[in-house]
Amino acid sequence: MAFNSLLKSFPRTKLRLPRARFSSSSAHLSPRNTTCGQPHFPCVDAHAVRASRIIASVSQRRSAEYNPGNGQSDTGPEPPYARPTPASYHTYHHPQPLSLSYTTTPLPSFDLAYETWGTLSPAKDNVILLHTGLSASSHAASTSLNPAPGWWEKFIGPGKALDTNKFFIICTNVLGGCYGSTGPSSIEPETEKPWGTRFPVISIFDMVQAQFVLLDSLGINKLYASVGCSMGGMQSLAAGWLYPSRVGKIVSISGTARSAPSSIAMRYAQRSVLMADPNWNNGFYYDGLPPHTGMKLARQIATITYRSGPEWDQRFGRQLRETSESNTQKLGPDRMPALCPDFLIETYLDHQGEQFCLKYDANSLIYISKAMDLFDMSYPALEALQIKPMPEYSRNTSSTEQVHKTSHSKSHPPPLNPPSHLPDLAAGMAPLKDIPTLVLGVQSDILFTVEQQREIADALRMAGNENVSYYELGGVWGHDTFLLDVLNVGSAIRGFLSIAP
Amino acid sequence: MAFNSLLKSFPRTKLRLPRARFSSSSAHLSPRNTTCGQPHFPCVDAHAVRASRIIASVSQRRSAEYNPGNGQSDTGPEPPYARPTPASYHTYHHPQPLSLSYTTTPLPSFDLAYETWGTLSPAKDNVILLHTGLSASSHAASTSLNPAPGWWEKFIGPGKALDTNKFFIICTNVLGGCYGSTGPSSIEPETEKPWGTRFPVISIFDMVQAQFVLLDSLGINKLYASVGCSMGGMQSLAAGWLYPSRVGKIVSISGTARSAPSSIAMRYAQRSVLMADPNWNNGFYYDGLPPHTGMKLARQIATITYRSGPEWDQRFGRQLRETSESNTQKLGPDRMPALCPDFLIETYLDHQGEQFCLKYDANSLIYISKAMDLFDMSYPALEALQIKPMPEYSRNTSSTEQVHKTSHSKSHPPPLNPPSHLPDLAAGMAPLKDIPTLVLGVQSDILFTVEQQREIADALRMAGNENVSYYELGGVWGHDTFLLDVLNVGSAIRGFLSIAP
Repeated sequence: MAFNSLLKSFPRTKLRLPRARFSSSSAHLSPRNTTCGQPHFPCVDAHAVRASRIIASVSQRRSAEYNPGNGQSDTGPEPPYARPTPASYHTYHHPQPLSLSYTTTPLPSFDLAYETWGTLSPAKDNVILLHTGLSASSHAASTSLNPAPGWWEKFIGPGKALDTNKFFIICTNVLGGCYGSTGPSSIEPETEKPWGTRFPVISIFDMVQAQFVLLDSLGINKLYASVGCSMGGMQSLAAGWLYPSRVGKIVSISGTARSAPSSIAMRYAQRSVLMADPNWNNGFYYDGLPPHTGMKLARQIATITYRSGPEWDQRFGRQLRETSESNTQKLGPDRMPALCPDFLIETYLDHQGEQFCLKYDANSLIYISKAMDLFDMSYPALEALQIKPMPEYSRNTSSTEQVHKTSHSKSHPPPLNPPSHLPDLAAGMAPLKDIPTLVLGVQSDILFTVEQQREIADALRMAGNENVSYYELGGVWGHDTFLLDVLNVGSAIRGFLSIAP
Repeated sequence: MAFNSLLKSFPRTKLRLPRARFSSSSAHLSPRNTTCGQPHFPCVDAHAVRASRIIASVSQRRSAEYNPGNGQSDTGPEPPYARPTPASYHTYHHPQPLSLSYTTTPLPSFDLAYETWGTLSPAKDNVILLHTGLSASSHAASTSLNPAPGWWEKFIGPGKALDTNKFFIICTNVLGGCYGSTGPSSIEPETEKPWGTRFPVISIFDMVQAQFVLLDSLGINKLYASVGCSMGGMQSLAAGWLYPSRVGKIVSISGTARSAPSSIAMRYAQRSVLMADPNWNNGFYYDGLPPHTGMKLARQIATITYRSGPEWDQRFGRQLRETSESNTQKLGPDRMPALCPDFLIETYLDHQGEQFCLKYDANSLIYISKAMDLFDMSYPALEALQIKPMPEYSRNTSSTEQVHKTSHSKSHPPPLNPPSHLPDLAAGMAPLKDIPTLVLGVQSDILFTVEQQREIADALRMAGNENVSYYELGGVWGHDTFLLDVLNVGSAIRGFLSIAP
């Protein structure tokens, strides 16, 4: 045996010294991050501090409610979505049931919060329905009701990508959200308590259905275009599928037609972290502390998926955070590393998590991220749903066999190495074959990868769509490019929308 | 105002219906995942179930200790690293202090667990020091003491990449680990209690220093090669830097010379999740429940970084997990989605987390992942450390100015668009300029990206190293390629090691 020869070379005691772990040693190690000799961790303590702030803020507000004259304003960290909101958006209430994709029982009724920009033409033919990403509100741009900048401020306005001189733009808070639309934090009619996790699992299609009920109420029959980024891209495609005759054009930016396992994995990690927070309490936390720690941790993970490594290389590199204790930008004996953040990239994630953790409802995050995972426009997946294209799209043209027989878009030959599920996806997306579609992807996006963008374009073309515009953007902004690259994203949209229908 | 014109088009009541949220509705929604009408979540309950199992297992073992004759074996989930281990590896005890990179106070003493394969040559010139990744033990391959397969089983043995017919291979559990080497779960000599977070922050260099103390004790002066993958790649480079005259060759596979912000971000997310687990208790959990939930969640995040999207596309796609309740592979009314895992990719992450959460010490994970973040071979970063190359490497040749003056490796012109920190990195890595080095990277690796591999090769060449072998591998296995691609990884190593020194 090989080791025996080694044993022979050395005294056995040298190899098997008794482990004198309890021997006294005069060497003393100064613990870092210590108070009175015990290590402490400000990044961990932050969770308890935040909890105290929430409790104090709620008490203060309740006290103010009992003594309305005390003049104290509520500036504490209680979730803003849980507070009574001023009328900074419009709310459509639908008192009838809404059929859902996965449950035979419909949602009994629902509210949809929405905002609009531009002027509706007399023919009502200039409407753009703008779909949001996961956690955005209807506040895509400033309005007179709410002058704060919106999440797509630079893309909406006179002469901008969504030109308010031409178009009437509607943006809703999605069904399942917490910014005025019905979601898990809303009151369940039957129990008169917040739905919590008794809220039904909803789909992207359900969200879109609710939006079209709103359009019905506004007398809008046909959209000039359905536009969305990220989850909004999914909704944009779903709108064309559900209502082929009511959608003039589709814009899908950094979306997908079929959530990939890597994206599901990243969202699952977020949901796991959130649901493991004891404050989540199986989704029934509305009369107690929200799962603010889980929300912060989930957002940190999400933030990693929204940007790209090259951007962080440029923006943060290995720069250290500034501290009150040390001016040096080098770790060493003069500035000992901590187990809490040392690097700017760490404080960036920490900050993003902290900013978000009380701004959004945890259950909404869970339900909407789940809806994203579930999204799959493949024919077999769509067939299993309760909902169908309306008016009923001719099933003759949407079977896999049909698509296999149809020729591929004449302008583009089939891809050389298509994924095996592409024909199923093309079959599922057949209802979109006559709708001009802009697909835009970003090469540095790790959440909705460029392969998923190519897949959308390939499937549409395989379904026979001759009017697919497809662009890929470079740059270092990753998934968030749609929020940041006003020039490239904006111009692609403007160009596409300007083509006469 | 644009919206006013819309208001005029519709009766105001239609837009501003009172929100009749409390209206009674006869529609009843069947909650999914419910017991007696209340939703329940097996994936969340799993944490409490695990806690109960740990407690039961500890009680059972304590009871067995008091009544040693009761014959009950301990098969429970108490962390195995916390149990007394059989002599399945060797332990070197170093009773003297070890100087550290970041603290002026040394580690008072340390143990290092190690295993060996092959036969030490009489001249002791055939030694390969194999460095592990983050959480691996010294058990790289089966031995007579421990016949279980090791983590690099297929790479070590007669005729394999690390050929035991030629080489004597040593692998240690790193300093800071929990598989027999001194780490945060070890007893602090001064307090006679586990170190916990009183353990000093250590560096990759400190780990390597401890390994060379072991080599000293074995009478081994010079390594034939220093070989490592992932964090082991960092150690492999660090060995060449600390002991330029004692390292014959370097192999760095999917490592880095300078942790990138994206890698730090992914590890920070893991540490945050772990440290937020109340059971972590600032690192002092050794007499209570370990932070098993945080460990599971952290491992789920880590798992995402170890593989690649394309692999999961092929392996899991959108397949659903098998359930006892339903045979269908389609989600719909017959198989309603849950908020717990539906997709195979989710159960895969869940399983990986569950498997790991009691196998490794949480503090070791925190300290070692932090050591990876801190790793930076740039000249300014190295200059701030306590430790220096031994014997003292001539500082004349390691300044940035010197490297700027030296010509780039003759075999390779400088890269066209080098990152701005490359000259600093080359200056820092100057002590390695005479050591033949194999750098191997994987294009689908999202944790140690291929850009980081190119950076190592470029910096070494810029430092004047004429013997840099550089390969990139394709494939879909991501960071884990070094564990899986025996043919390509193994052949590159064999070829490189076979070159006469």
